[in-house]
Amino acid sequence: MKEYIEQNKERFFEELFSLLRIPSVSAKAEHKPDMIKCAERWKELLLDAGADEAGVYPTKGNPVVFAKKIVDPSCKTVLVYGHYDVQPAEPFELWNNPPFEPVIHDGAIWARGANDDKGQTFMHAKAFEYLVRTGQLKHNVKFIFEGEEEIGSPSLPAWVEENKEMLEADIILVSDTTMMSDKVPSINCGMRGMAYFELKVTGPDKDLHSGHYGGAVANPLNVLCDIVSSLIDKDGRITVEGFYDDVVELPAEDRAMLARAPFDQQEFNDFLKIKNVKGEKGYTTNERIGIRPCLDLCGIYGGYTGEGAKTVLPSWAKAKVSMRLVPNQTAEKISDLFVKHIDKIAPDYVKVEVTPMQGGNGFLIPIQSEAYQAAAKAMGEVYGIEPIPSRGGGSIAILADMQRILGIDPLLMGFGLERDVIHSPNESYLLTQLFRGMESIALFYKYY
Amino acid sequence: MKEYIEQNKERFFEELFSLLRIPSVSAKAEHKPDMIKCAERWKELLLDAGADEAGVYPTKGNPVVFAKKIVDPSCKTVLVYGHYDVQPAEPFELWNNPPFEPVIHDGAIWARGANDDKGQTFMHAKAFEYLVRTGQLKHNVKFIFEGEEEIGSPSLPAWVEENKEMLEADIILVSDTTMMSDKVPSINCGMRGMAYFELKVTGPDKDLHSGHYGGAVANPLNVLCDIVSSLIDKDGRITVEGFYDDVVELPAEDRAMLARAPFDQQEFNDFLKIKNVKGEKGYTTNERIGIRPCLDLCGIYGGYTGEGAKTVLPSWAKAKVSMRLVPNQTAEKISDLFVKHIDKIAPDYVKVEVTPMQGGNGFLIPIQSEAYQAAAKAMGEVYGIEPIPSRGGGSIAILADMQRILGIDPLLMGFGLERDVIHSPNESYLLTQLFRGMESIALFYKYY
Repeated sequence: MKEYIEQNKERFFEELFSLLRIPSVSAKAEHKPDMIKCAERWKELLLDAGADEAGVYPTKGNPVVFAKKIVDPSCKTVLVYGHYDVQPAEPFELWNNPPFEPVIHDGAIWARGANDDKGQTFMHAKAFEYLVRTGQLKHNVKFIFEGEEEIGSPSLPAWVEENKEMLEADIILVSDTTMMSDKVPSINCGMRGMAYFELKVTGPDKDLHSGHYGGAVANPLNVLCDIVSSLIDKDGRITVEGFYDDVVELPAEDRAMLARAPFDQQEFNDFLKIKNVKGEKGYTTNERIGIRPCLDLCGIYGGYTGEGAKTVLPSWAKAKVSMRLVPNQTAEKISDLFVKHIDKIAPDYVKVEVTPMQGGNGFLIPIQSEAYQAAAKAMGEVYGIEPIPSRGGGSIAILADMQRILGIDPLLMGFGLERDVIHSPNESYLLTQLFRGMESIALFYKYY
Repeated sequence: MKEYIEQNKERFFEELFSLLRIPSVSAKAEHKPDMIKCAERWKELLLDAGADEAGVYPTKGNPVVFAKKIVDPSCKTVLVYGHYDVQPAEPFELWNNPPFEPVIHDGAIWARGANDDKGQTFMHAKAFEYLVRTGQLKHNVKFIFEGEEEIGSPSLPAWVEENKEMLEADIILVSDTTMMSDKVPSINCGMRGMAYFELKVTGPDKDLHSGHYGGAVANPLNVLCDIVSSLIDKDGRITVEGFYDDVVELPAEDRAMLARAPFDQQEFNDFLKIKNVKGEKGYTTNERIGIRPCLDLCGIYGGYTGEGAKTVLPSWAKAKVSMRLVPNQTAEKISDLFVKHIDKIAPDYVKVEVTPMQGGNGFLIPIQSEAYQAAAKAMGEVYGIEPIPSRGGGSIAILADMQRILGIDPLLMGFGLERDVIHSPNESYLLTQLFRGMESIALFYKYY
């Protein structure tokens, strides 16, 4: 495939850039037309790459792109999952180039979605194209690209349920995660789930003068801080009653295997420019990310947030709370527990509302599986070193749902790197990873 | 004065509206030209009202309006203090009419500054005009209207120091506070001071994916909540070491006098639409506001605050913290203690910065003073009931400074009411209070 990439590089960039230029931000209603535009563009690209048929399918939310090429019904079928929506690009002012005007410099593509997930999904389309055009394709291939991954895939489970037969396959192949480093390839064999909530604390029904009322009326900002602060104890454990009930403690040998992954705490700290890490007592940084649940504020706001020093005792305060869950915890049960917990601790001098926003379960992939072994062999050949099985801290809730609905395991061949800072300003994707990803995927089909 | 008001009412409205239409928001740099415009408008109005001379004086910040009429150097001199700047009007969408397009309905003027402090200051200009035009003025009168009260008057103390002689007077007369109700007039004989800070917590040097790092890296939003939450204990007391050292406990008889003020806790709660109040243990609502210090967040922000559910572990979080101080506490000492306290409790896994924004001391006015007695007599005559001495919860730091620099006591004849919701959307000022205020001020000159 190396040669094919060399010959077609410029066209590849043009095609990928045509996707990156569409601001398909699923979190914002104003981008609805961009979602459709991006889905239509994917349909064209998949047909060009060699799909027999491709379509943009409506859902209750953003449409799904589905395409397929059936070589022979008796062959194994690979279902490639990806998403064409991206995270919001705010804060815009921190981008070195406009987020939806991709550029190449320093050996990388810079744009919102360069990695997550337009860049990574693109590798699958091009590996497929290579196999088709060189007559090497020996598998049936199906593509499902959704437009709601970044908002928790609210519409996809129903659509998958309705189109079960069309989606039949032997493996779900996904590139939407990272590997440890470009020197140390790894394959995710587990992902965390998520439960996301909005908390709103309302005090007086209007903003008040902080001098005329301060000290006598509960301040919703202070109360929100009290509530949030009480959710994690001094050992870094979440205080929601029953939260750890379904968390399986990993046996010592599994923790030892995980600990074999090369990791330098000082390098980690230096990369983030932090003096020290913080997390659950008794676990290493990799364990805290891979095998333990956590609770994080993703946003908080209320009162006067402009220039200067306005004095006000505001009427309300809001926070966005995300919990990452580990396998065996279910988003549904955690959601129930969280809502009950908040109701229990809400003081009577304010009104506290908790709104579940999205959720999904985590999952584990058997290392013994044929697909994992094929991926490991392929990546080992490209990178010259056997990939390490790892556990990812992120969440692709929809994969847990698809596994449940379709009965197919997902395999996560992720080629992203930490340095890509997906979800942040100046997201990028190394060209070396883009091309090695294509090669690895092409080889996967050889060994699977 | 009643008749004079009746005859000139329409002109009064036109004049006051010409001030209210200028968005003189001192907290925002973009309104700099409006500050000058508003100062110039005041200069015209004071000259029209009968001042011998008036000028707009530059300071290091917004200009000061100064005007005077010297009847006879041997007469008593009244120095009227007011401010022409206003609080920001955000959130605009909650206003029933645009904040800088004043309207009259339901017996009140509705606009930002209708009460605080354009409306209240206007009463002094018109009472003065009445006395001048009817030949009743027996005092020298000086006016000092500043443009930085809402941002803590950073430039005025230096200007007052430089113009000490020009400002010589026997009493500083101020209408920038409330009375208990329009049935129960009161005169503030004490105000709280203030110390205001911005807190910034910085974690990683960039926003991170909350899945790839969550649980292992300190989240600045959560840490900020922890810090803020730790500043007040379960009894509602501020935990900053040494914070209460200079707070004088009021003797039982003073607390009893304060308790005589009519107050209905249920009415208070109903007005604010809250189920319950919250504050320092062992004190009543009025005491918590009038004689006890407090700490309030005025704003908090960080992470994703838009529509939808973006997952992010943000790089930083900010909060605006205001403390109201009682007489004998100094803003300077409290500022030192607060900065030291924050430094002490800041954990090593984040960077915590604390920036003092503004501050000022509280003060007390002797009830026995000639000026207080004249004001009480004047208001008693207009309202038909003797005013109650009270303690205000707000802060006019500059009055404490002027008292110190000029050696003159401030007298606070405030005609605002709770219902005016100054600093909030839909600020208003009752016409009855506007006119009774003018009458009371005119009578003050009679009895002083």
